[in-house]
Amino acid sequence: MATVVQTVPRADAATIAGLAECGVATVHEAQGRQGLLASYMRPIYSGARLAASAVTISAPPGDNWMLHVAIEQLQAGDILVLAPTSPCEDGYFGDLLATSARARGGVGLIIDAGVRDVRDLTEMQFPVWSKAVFAQGTVKETLGSVNVPVVCAGALIHAGDVVVADDDGVCVVRREAAASVLEAAKKRVAAEEEKRKRLAAGELGLDIYAMRERLAEKGLTYV
Amino acid sequence: MATVVQTVPRADAATIAGLAECGVATVHEAQGRQGLLASYMRPIYSGARLAASAVTISAPPGDNWMLHVAIEQLQAGDILVLAPTSPCEDGYFGDLLATSARARGGVGLIIDAGVRDVRDLTEMQFPVWSKAVFAQGTVKETLGSVNVPVVCAGALIHAGDVVVADDDGVCVVRREAAASVLEAAKKRVAAEEEKRKRLAAGELGLDIYAMRERLAEKGLTYV
Amino acid sequence: MATVVQTVPRADAATIAGLAECGVATVHEAQGRQGLLASYMRPIYSGARLAASAVTISAPPGDNWMLHVAIEQLQAGDILVLAPTSPCEDGYFGDLLATSARARGGVGLIIDAGVRDVRDLTEMQFPVWSKAVFAQGTVKETLGSVNVPVVCAGALIHAGDVVVADDDGVCVVRREAAASVLEAAKKRVAAEEEKRKRLAAGELGLDIYAMRERLAEKGLTYV
Amino acid sequence: MATVVQTVPRADAATIAGLAECGVATVHEAQGRQGLLASYMRPIYSGARLAASAVTISAPPGDNWMLHVAIEQLQAGDILVLAPTSPCEDGYFGDLLATSARARGGVGLIIDAGVRDVRDLTEMQFPVWSKAVFAQGTVKETLGSVNVPVVCAGALIHAGDVVVADDDGVCVVRREAAASVLEAAKKRVAAEEEKRKRLAAGELGLDIYAMRERLAEKGLTYV
Amino acid sequence: MATVVQTVPRADAATIAGLAECGVATVHEAQGRQGLLASYMRPIYSGARLAASAVTISAPPGDNWMLHVAIEQLQAGDILVLAPTSPCEDGYFGDLLATSARARGGVGLIIDAGVRDVRDLTEMQFPVWSKAVFAQGTVKETLGSVNVPVVCAGALIHAGDVVVADDDGVCVVRREAAASVLEAAKKRVAAEEEKRKRLAAGELGLDIYAMRERLAEKGLTYV
Amino acid sequence: MATVVQTVPRADAATIAGLAECGVATVHEAQGRQGLLASYMRPIYSGARLAASAVTISAPPGDNWMLHVAIEQLQAGDILVLAPTSPCEDGYFGDLLATSARARGGVGLIIDAGVRDVRDLTEMQFPVWSKAVFAQGTVKETLGSVNVPVVCAGALIHAGDVVVADDDGVCVVRREAAASVLEAAKKRVAAEEEKRKRLAAGELGLDIYAMRERLAEKGLTYV
Repeated sequence: MATVVQTVPRADAATIAGLAECGVATVHEAQGRQGLLASYMRPIYSGARLAASAVTISAPPGDNWMLHVAIEQLQAGDILVLAPTSPCEDGYFGDLLATSARARGGVGLIIDAGVRDVRDLTEMQFPVWSKAVFAQGTVKETLGSVNVPVVCAGALIHAGDVVVADDDGVCVVRREAAASVLEAAKKRVAAEEEKRKRLAAGELGLDIYAMRERLAEKGLTYV
Repeated sequence: MATVVQTVPRADAATIAGLAECGVATVHEAQGRQGLLASYMRPIYSGARLAASAVTISAPPGDNWMLHVAIEQLQAGDILVLAPTSPCEDGYFGDLLATSARARGGVGLIIDAGVRDVRDLTEMQFPVWSKAVFAQGTVKETLGSVNVPVVCAGALIHAGDVVVADDDGVCVVRREAAASVLEAAKKRVAAEEEKRKRLAAGELGLDIYAMRERLAEKGLTYV
Repeated sequence: MATVVQTVPRADAATIAGLAECGVATVHEAQGRQGLLASYMRPIYSGARLAASAVTISAPPGDNWMLHVAIEQLQAGDILVLAPTSPCEDGYFGDLLATSARARGGVGLIIDAGVRDVRDLTEMQFPVWSKAVFAQGTVKETLGSVNVPVVCAGALIHAGDVVVADDDGVCVVRREAAASVLEAAKKRVAAEEEKRKRLAAGELGLDIYAMRERLAEKGLTYV
Repeated sequence: MATVVQTVPRADAATIAGLAECGVATVHEAQGRQGLLASYMRPIYSGARLAASAVTISAPPGDNWMLHVAIEQLQAGDILVLAPTSPCEDGYFGDLLATSARARGGVGLIIDAGVRDVRDLTEMQFPVWSKAVFAQGTVKETLGSVNVPVVCAGALIHAGDVVVADDDGVCVVRREAAASVLEAAKKRVAAEEEKRKRLAAGELGLDIYAMRERLAEKGLTYV
Repeated sequence: MATVVQTVPRADAATIAGLAECGVATVHEAQGRQGLLASYMRPIYSGARLAASAVTISAPPGDNWMLHVAIEQLQAGDILVLAPTSPCEDGYFGDLLATSARARGGVGLIIDAGVRDVRDLTEMQFPVWSKAVFAQGTVKETLGSVNVPVVCAGALIHAGDVVVADDDGVCVVRREAAASVLEAAKKRVAAEEEKRKRLAAGELGLDIYAMRERLAEKGLTYV
Repeated sequence: MATVVQTVPRADAATIAGLAECGVATVHEAQGRQGLLASYMRPIYSGARLAASAVTISAPPGDNWMLHVAIEQLQAGDILVLAPTSPCEDGYFGDLLATSARARGGVGLIIDAGVRDVRDLTEMQFPVWSKAVFAQGTVKETLGSVNVPVVCAGALIHAGDVVVADDDGVCVVRREAAASVLEAAKKRVAAEEEKRKRLAAGELGLDIYAMRERLAEKGLTYV
């Protein structure tokens, strides 16, 4: 059952770039409030912001062997996405693997476990969103799979899905939906720009969104 | 039972400013080690430091409707304080609401739940202390209350109480006690200045505070 | 049973300095993947990196009396290591104690509890790795011990052991093993340098480490 | 600031008994979904079910001195409610204190910390709802207060408030509201009885509560 | 996007019954160590043991409206499986809904959130595996979906998949694989019976599984 | 570094039996409030109560190979104590291993990880104290050590130390101290018996322990 899927369709590069620009919160809203990974997935440094095609890894707890296998499957612009088969916070990944991943086109890592060498990774500006920072070493004894569907931090991710990540966390967009989600996200961005101006000028959301009547109907009382 | 209290007495502006300068740890000590919010309430960026009058919000989980209602109640120098009615880490608040709050005089947010758009909020230098950073969207379906007493991250907060917040976390001071707490805090700051010099010069706390005798009485043994 | 051990052998200064340079992840691997403290032990600011001899403290929950006792036991280059006798996140330590510790030669603090005044500590560049940032004050009523063995964040630490800490967390090296661990760590660093170059050039770990055959034997299937 | 309030009004005994019979979930709903303590407050054995007037205790972490003080304040039918001033899971209470509390009229304990001797307490059928079961001993060194308002597991509790507890957890009812909450709770029980019969007969909530039209309006689609 | 899927294929009743008999640990092993829900999913009482076809529910936090919708979709022998769209521990489900579910053929509930009325549910012997026991009430304001794929406590579950649950927790088996997993599980049970006898007689696993040589090869040393 | 220590001194059988009778809370107090394992170590069923000599296991996360090795080292009356080298909640142990351990004289298991087959273990009355109940399977690929010192759930345990466990949790007593701790524990039991009678008769701890004067000195005020 340990399998490496080698043929993975990716989304269009322009679509991926567009999703990166919209950011996690907007993309999440634009696709109907789906696809967020758990809030414990935090970036190792502030300011990173990307979208990329997922190369997924299902790995045993405390065993990073499959990362080496996955790196061979990277194409330029891909991101590694690792989900352990049981909860684990060991440091599967450090600066050597980051060097290797970057050399093969990888742009980052999403890992529902730990990462180490975070000072070096920060200096390299190799972005990682992880559950933990932990130096705990791993072994290379047990197989896992690459490019199979995984549940990572509570979200289902298929190989080739678009992962959007920034300081707000991580969101996954199904590859098939990427173009339409981008379209919806752009509309949302435009609409927000308009609202931001009105709010900055002191207009209230209560008035912009015409909430007062509905609040009264529901029974809100001012005293 | 969904109520908006519109008349909220605030503490004196000079008192509030004085409390901000003293900082959370000192204010907490000065009022008898009371009023701290739980340690999981962390700032979204380092270096923010403020004191402000609380506009409190009791909101359902995953529903940010009352934030719009509360923003209308803000006066210059106020801070929004949101407590969900059951544990929740959804992202109730982002850059649009921050824009609106700031336009109405709001200076920050304390939220026992999640916040999103943290990159934008950091650029705006709009400070937030929260339980989580999470992009998860919310709905606008169920009423809550504004300016009623809330328990936020384990601390009881009334509308108009003074919230002090910095990199150490968040502390609440009852409005009625604000002036006397400030006085006590200032004395504490002055006393600490004196001690800091002696400690920096290499004197020991054991001697400054005359602890040696009491330690011996209690039975401390040196070997 | 409250005891202060005054005679504590330290490791050689050059060895300690060498371990600091190798960093937590490397040292942990070099001593057989032992000695890590729990991943919740995080630095209060990024970029600190040190190795130092432990002055250990076993303290009651919410009582920081023994810190004053321990500071007298510091020698130049030592680090305070505090383990509460039951789980606690109170702020045992702030800028006054840091001032005192530094004046007596202390270079940092490892604490399986809380710390406060983190803004001041950051300005002082006094590094702390802690379980929590929390302003909660403590009392001075109950004795503990200094320089006895403690279990701190899951790791056994003896007075005089070498504590290595950086952005990856904290690792302890037994004093007796410090020299041989340093030797092993240096070899590891050298070997990694070689591998880093090959990986950066695009060679795969699969080939460098000759993993392909063993993966096939275990049954890895490419599809 | 360490105070023992000796005069505490209690609710009517019949009202208290009535609330016990309604149970936590019903009482919580009947008072507008307020007053629940956090879900981590669990009973040490199944099947206990009570309502009682609160004798509140604010105690330092790891210090159970105030329990002795509080026991003197018990009247027949009261329950001890202990909130530590900072998070703690030490075992403040065991079979000796239970023996003493029972001898003075106490009927149980609510503690946002730990309890020990649970086997003995279970044999005595002395019910406790706690955050933890933990044998960790405490000291008697630092004062706290008795019968002052406390925030216990996220809920504000005044001395004399009615605490309702069963296998679902713990809920507090303000003393002043106890009679009206009981009335509302009884109506709710009666209404539920009617609905239970219809549901047991196979009628759907969708029909009993006439939900189908509103679901359709909101856009629910059957495929 | 709020959808109710009405046509859901189920696995064969005999297969489902067979899986129940094998139990969670065996089924999990038999399908290659996949499909377990997180360890925090605990039964509200000991001894329940079942397998059933999943009727899945994706519901907003704190909103149990969709449970009423889902109950209409139950067939005899089905189990409700609820995943909130963001983390929540509210009590979505109590004895009234259990009465209704049972009347329509439902045999239990798996919920990555809270449950209440656990005393009544225990008396009814209506089994629930949940993340929390919590009386917190919910609203009926926002739509969700029924019989769409959900990620529940970290596991992907499709409507019609077979859920196996007992005192060890919960495991999901893809409907399409149910028959083959049952076959593998039965073989496993038979093999274990044989081993149990040998082990009970004092033979060692080291000998039964011929581990000694491989342990020596790996370098295990006896001292 | 993977080692099995075969010669382990045990404490006297009568001493061990005596400690079991005293129970965890009393033993913990009698040895100066030391030796408790973390409060998350809970029994899989209520009512078990034992003391036994530890056969310790240091095992990789998700790898239960060393349990087979350890079982060969059991002597009659021993208990297995497993600490993973990094945090893990996998189910290392089930009814087959329990059958084997019992056949070789083992009387229970302490594991800072998960256990499975808890229904069978309960029927067998094979007691386990664990961090989790979780069916997650493990591999047999990586060595660990047996009868080396381990830190288990925060407590240092040497092979041959006496582990005391009951419904309050788990406490370890150093083998060398077992006899003297037992003596102290027996005195404590006798003293408590006396106090229990007085407390049951309604005397207050305030009077029995003569606390009133010291409380007044510290400043306790009755209002």
